[in-house]
Amino acid sequence: MNQQQKTWTASVIGASGYSGAELIKLLKRHPGIEIEALYAHTQAGKHFSELYPAIPCDKVFQTYEGQTDSDIYFLALPHGEALRLVPGLLAAGKKIIDLSGDYRLEKVDEHKHFYGGDKSPEAVLQYGMPELFRDEIVKSTAISNPGCYATSIILGLAPLFRGGMVGLEVESVNVTAISGISGAGRSAKTELSFSEMSGNMRAYKVGKHQHTPEIMQALGTSATEPSFRFVMTPMIAPYVRGIYSVLNVRLASPATMASIRELYAGFYADAPFVRLRNGVTEVSHVANTNFCDVSLAFENDGSLVIITAIDNLVKGAAGQAVQNMNLMLGFDETTALL
Amino acid sequence: MNQQQKTWTASVIGASGYSGAELIKLLKRHPGIEIEALYAHTQAGKHFSELYPAIPCDKVFQTYEGQTDSDIYFLALPHGEALRLVPGLLAAGKKIIDLSGDYRLEKVDEHKHFYGGDKSPEAVLQYGMPELFRDEIVKSTAISNPGCYATSIILGLAPLFRGGMVGLEVESVNVTAISGISGAGRSAKTELSFSEMSGNMRAYKVGKHQHTPEIMQALGTSATEPSFRFVMTPMIAPYVRGIYSVLNVRLASPATMASIRELYAGFYADAPFVRLRNGVTEVSHVANTNFCDVSLAFENDGSLVIITAIDNLVKGAAGQAVQNMNLMLGFDETTALL
Amino acid sequence: MNQQQKTWTASVIGASGYSGAELIKLLKRHPGIEIEALYAHTQAGKHFSELYPAIPCDKVFQTYEGQTDSDIYFLALPHGEALRLVPGLLAAGKKIIDLSGDYRLEKVDEHKHFYGGDKSPEAVLQYGMPELFRDEIVKSTAISNPGCYATSIILGLAPLFRGGMVGLEVESVNVTAISGISGAGRSAKTELSFSEMSGNMRAYKVGKHQHTPEIMQALGTSATEPSFRFVMTPMIAPYVRGIYSVLNVRLASPATMASIRELYAGFYADAPFVRLRNGVTEVSHVANTNFCDVSLAFENDGSLVIITAIDNLVKGAAGQAVQNMNLMLGFDETTALL
Amino acid sequence: MNQQQKTWTASVIGASGYSGAELIKLLKRHPGIEIEALYAHTQAGKHFSELYPAIPCDKVFQTYEGQTDSDIYFLALPHGEALRLVPGLLAAGKKIIDLSGDYRLEKVDEHKHFYGGDKSPEAVLQYGMPELFRDEIVKSTAISNPGCYATSIILGLAPLFRGGMVGLEVESVNVTAISGISGAGRSAKTELSFSEMSGNMRAYKVGKHQHTPEIMQALGTSATEPSFRFVMTPMIAPYVRGIYSVLNVRLASPATMASIRELYAGFYADAPFVRLRNGVTEVSHVANTNFCDVSLAFENDGSLVIITAIDNLVKGAAGQAVQNMNLMLGFDETTALL
Repeated sequence: MNQQQKTWTASVIGASGYSGAELIKLLKRHPGIEIEALYAHTQAGKHFSELYPAIPCDKVFQTYEGQTDSDIYFLALPHGEALRLVPGLLAAGKKIIDLSGDYRLEKVDEHKHFYGGDKSPEAVLQYGMPELFRDEIVKSTAISNPGCYATSIILGLAPLFRGGMVGLEVESVNVTAISGISGAGRSAKTELSFSEMSGNMRAYKVGKHQHTPEIMQALGTSATEPSFRFVMTPMIAPYVRGIYSVLNVRLASPATMASIRELYAGFYADAPFVRLRNGVTEVSHVANTNFCDVSLAFENDGSLVIITAIDNLVKGAAGQAVQNMNLMLGFDETTALL
Repeated sequence: MNQQQKTWTASVIGASGYSGAELIKLLKRHPGIEIEALYAHTQAGKHFSELYPAIPCDKVFQTYEGQTDSDIYFLALPHGEALRLVPGLLAAGKKIIDLSGDYRLEKVDEHKHFYGGDKSPEAVLQYGMPELFRDEIVKSTAISNPGCYATSIILGLAPLFRGGMVGLEVESVNVTAISGISGAGRSAKTELSFSEMSGNMRAYKVGKHQHTPEIMQALGTSATEPSFRFVMTPMIAPYVRGIYSVLNVRLASPATMASIRELYAGFYADAPFVRLRNGVTEVSHVANTNFCDVSLAFENDGSLVIITAIDNLVKGAAGQAVQNMNLMLGFDETTALL
Repeated sequence: MNQQQKTWTASVIGASGYSGAELIKLLKRHPGIEIEALYAHTQAGKHFSELYPAIPCDKVFQTYEGQTDSDIYFLALPHGEALRLVPGLLAAGKKIIDLSGDYRLEKVDEHKHFYGGDKSPEAVLQYGMPELFRDEIVKSTAISNPGCYATSIILGLAPLFRGGMVGLEVESVNVTAISGISGAGRSAKTELSFSEMSGNMRAYKVGKHQHTPEIMQALGTSATEPSFRFVMTPMIAPYVRGIYSVLNVRLASPATMASIRELYAGFYADAPFVRLRNGVTEVSHVANTNFCDVSLAFENDGSLVIITAIDNLVKGAAGQAVQNMNLMLGFDETTALL
Repeated sequence: MNQQQKTWTASVIGASGYSGAELIKLLKRHPGIEIEALYAHTQAGKHFSELYPAIPCDKVFQTYEGQTDSDIYFLALPHGEALRLVPGLLAAGKKIIDLSGDYRLEKVDEHKHFYGGDKSPEAVLQYGMPELFRDEIVKSTAISNPGCYATSIILGLAPLFRGGMVGLEVESVNVTAISGISGAGRSAKTELSFSEMSGNMRAYKVGKHQHTPEIMQALGTSATEPSFRFVMTPMIAPYVRGIYSVLNVRLASPATMASIRELYAGFYADAPFVRLRNGVTEVSHVANTNFCDVSLAFENDGSLVIITAIDNLVKGAAGQAVQNMNLMLGFDETTALL
């Protein structure tokens, strides 16, 4: 931490879900942040610690009614709700980190197609993936925090697309991404009950790439006309935290593993939370951390297998949000995250 | 069951592992089988029910020393051990079902390359996948039972390769296959402990296709010169039973979903254990059953996603073995399995 | 099975819950039963196999409107609903097995106190615990199936209270009983979600013995004035199936372990599903079976520790119901249950 | 933290097990501690992060050969090994926290009886339970850290025995204590494998109270002649972290819940990690924290049910060790623990 740093006040809107709770846990550890208010209208009046006894915090949930007294606002709301609140917070000169999908897609028509609502083309928030946009984030006041699946896939692919190795061209990417069940939120659904999910595993939304445009946008290619074929199957498996993504990548021309590892190592040289692993990473290696692990291997046919692992609630949500906040406010990027 | 059927005596060599125990459970329910002896030299002298109290059976494990008094022998041994026992059992005129990999690969050089030992080219056992080789199995006396990963992948692909739809050609197949932890056997390993695997998931043998030649052989193509590109990543997830395989298939030319479903439905019209599902199957839909579920969907880019689910210990091992036995001995194919 | 047995038709009212589904699984295996209709008004029109793909059954859920065409009716309904249906079924001369609590307590005032509704004092169903009331069940046409907690506790204590060892008197019993989460039913509740229950354990209804009167009644003592002190704490742990009960029993005078084991062995000599174990039983030893395992040990202070294990959906519900049916209809007690 | 505090160097002997790893995680967060060396002879030469990738730490495991260069030594070794190392460390004037059972029992004969080895009567370490012995710990240089089961039980009972409510007398205590599987250590055992423990639960050492003397000693009564009857059954359930203890307490004379709650609240008024809860606590409420939660309720017969929950690796081991260290070194008791 920068010793001269002032203490900033922070509030969380949508603080009763799993991402909101993870934010409270991290912000409590942060020496430069004072948590001011927790908003969650469905839980208004209850203590935070009633819902999350393992995270001691004596705040009471309130209903958000336009308050602007904090320095920075985190929004951890269902998709669509941030669109209504962000303009007011921007107008009040607040710093903002939105964890929803509302501002992830820059193109208004893509947003409408994939999220199903209109949004004003004026409000563009900086896409908050520090490993790709650190300089822009440092200069920003409002951030759209990436999605969890997108984070695990973009970080696995970015060096291939943005790393600048001569002659490297990707023909196709096949992704199988397995999420922990907390990714479905704190919800009462029969199909997410312990009795249904213990011993179980299921794919969902097969053939419907809602995450594709976000990934393409970050990689610098077009979702409607991407430069490569992209297929993704999301699944859930019986663990609470984590996303484990297997990316099968076909390259247009051969490359050596040494050159590819060098490409990745160079691309992430300044990224404190991306670890290029020697062996095969596992979900437990990153659970409850802000790391994104990357493992690389060749298949016999010369195609590349990239495996990435993150904690969906940390690097895939609250941790990346705090990492973005650190950059915006001038803290060391890793404060409260190691 | 054929009413005139005599009762056959059956023994299991390697009866103390998970596949062996599953065999006992199924054979106990079979009206035409009497279990005669259980062999497991590391557990010799112990009662079966000491190891598996949920499967009541009062037999005591013995050491196998060449006994040939039963009509049929199941071998559920580690790879390499069946090679020593099968010749003697064949010479004694016994019926045999071998659950190991020892006789799966017909080509001696492929076997040596992938399993690392020599075997006599004379002894060829019939590959026991009823959905592809029912007629041959009915006429056989010795069966090599398929591997669990191979079963889940072959049954997902066979209609595309052997189903005879005009113009259908597969360019590439990318497989992610997730196994339950029982697939690693009944073993004492730190990395398979509850403390390590709860909340965890890991890939292994990335880039090393030990299952490829078995799959290629069954599909009628060559492992060294397959007609399509094939990539497979095996994983384990925190559940005990099941294999969930996601097959991303790129076709050389477009096809309609209706025609592909018709192809699959026709191919499996007489297969009582393969279910072409309307929605997306799940591991719990097949756990503790002999079913192989198949779900089909198109991706936006026109490629096909095939998801299959089996129980690795049932359809992937003991259940398929009993299914093969039923065919060999003239029982209804589903006896003791529904 | 009695070879001359006719085939009986059976219907299940409340067939969409976990106990109902378990009943279908068991009845399908029964050689003397033909499943006729499945009633579940919230799921009417859906196929059974849509909800339970692992249990192949092509029946469609219907709404129950007073049908009486089957020989035997199983009621697996929420507490209170059987009270409305049983009189009509009795009047129609049907055989009945009710899995709810509606007819478990014989005393009308106890029922009102613990279940909170009135019931007619005329309709008394036979309490269906075969190990204690086999002769009465054989002669009955209508059975009230015991509760799952009560089953695991009564079977652990009955030899002490009803076994007739001279001088044996129980001063107090402290019970901790841990149920699998399926005991809470197939329901959509946040507190039963995988994300909340994985890695978790909780007691509930502490200090509120709703199961006490059923246990006292079966043991032949009074709930309001029992002959011994009785304390029970129910809990749930992160597994799907099972009840594991630890009974700390203080005896009024010393007894030898040999004499107590002899008492238990004698009491259960004719009970095919109660196993007096030598070592300590585990939940996995009885999961998916109709067994009730009993382990016995002394504490240093001379008090007795009895541990029992059952599968709450089998011996604690559907399995015991089929066991009762077998006795009522004249089948072998174990038919479809081993 | 005391601002003038110097930085102390700390080493961990036995750093490769779960308790050792948890210590590293906590010490890394501590602003007044620098981790110096990690000793684990079976893993010597490996990086700590190879075994625990989720806890970034670039130290390499070494073999301990009598080094005394650190200010404080944590010993997280199997029972018996600290007895050989502590005398040398004491002689060198080092501060010591021993997490094993070697110095928990003050009476040499009790130690010999329960742990099976001799120990010198001279070396007595302070029993490190801050809630009972804070003043003594502050003045100590060598601490014996309590056992995990004992911690969960002593903290549940101490106010009754040491709290000084007039007329309060305990007749008997029946304990059922359920531990997470990490309590069995990082080990390769078939019976602790995921395949065996998923869906399972088991009691062990039934009737053999190895934890009794530690509990009696802390409560101020004699293990051989305790003032009340004490029975304990330990179990493991399928979760990784936590101990959930249900204490059934029979009081000699009636007391009101208000007076008992007041007793507990007063007794723990200065204890930052003991929480007297209004409702029923759960394992997830304390997992990954240093809290010990206590819930209180009356049974119908007037006996008291006390439920406590801790994380066995934190409050039951490494967290309590750091809490003791904070007291010994003059840090705020909660440093690195909230």
